[in-house]
Amino acid sequence: MARPLLTGILMSALSLSALPTLAADLENGQKLARKCSACHGKDGLSKVPDVPNLAGQPALYLEKSLKGFRDGKREDRRMTLMAEPLTDAEIKDLAGWYASFELTVTMLE
Amino acid sequence: MARPLLTGILMSALSLSALPTLAADLENGQKLARKCSACHGKDGLSKVPDVPNLAGQPALYLEKSLKGFRDGKREDRRMTLMAEPLTDAEIKDLAGWYASFELTVTMLE
Repeated sequence: MARPLLTGILMSALSLSALPTLAADLENGQKLARKCSACHGKDGLSKVPDVPNLAGQPALYLEKSLKGFRDGKREDRRMTLMAEPLTDAEIKDLAGWYASFELTVTMLE
Repeated sequence: MARPLLTGILMSALSLSALPTLAADLENGQKLARKCSACHGKDGLSKVPDVPNLAGQPALYLEKSLKGFRDGKREDRRMTLMAEPLTDAEIKDLAGWYASFELTVTMLE
């Protein structure tokens, strides 16, 4: 009589993987990123010495950073102000947009 | 009788600008960066989803970040461990090394 239990487990696994994945809306990310460009550059390359480049950063890192500023875990007066009004979905869109930039690196020898 | 005062001010200005500037030792930075490469990549491009790229970041930003982790102003268990033993000079060298990488960015249209 093991069959019903096994079926139940398989069904749970299927329904979990069938959950809609929250994909970033890159078009919305691009729109939201206009506010960031004064400091982080239109191309995601910083124009300010103590401000990081965002171009090509991993999406997960960008999400973590923005939520950190928004939720008071990471401190920066300017970034707290910028991140405060953002929803989780908007943060995902912004992160997805900057993560979509392709980076090429040239190192000193 | 304003001359002695004026001379005093000029001399102070001169002695300030004559202070040795602490230039980053990129060779030492490269050596120190070996410990960072497991997560941040040999080319400064992250190999871990929640870890940032360091290649081409502004030196001042990198210095600020490393000192933040070292001094407990910024929180990350791994980075606190890595930054704890670093001196200000070593942080300057590391920051200078990563800042020396040249970045090229390709954006989605």
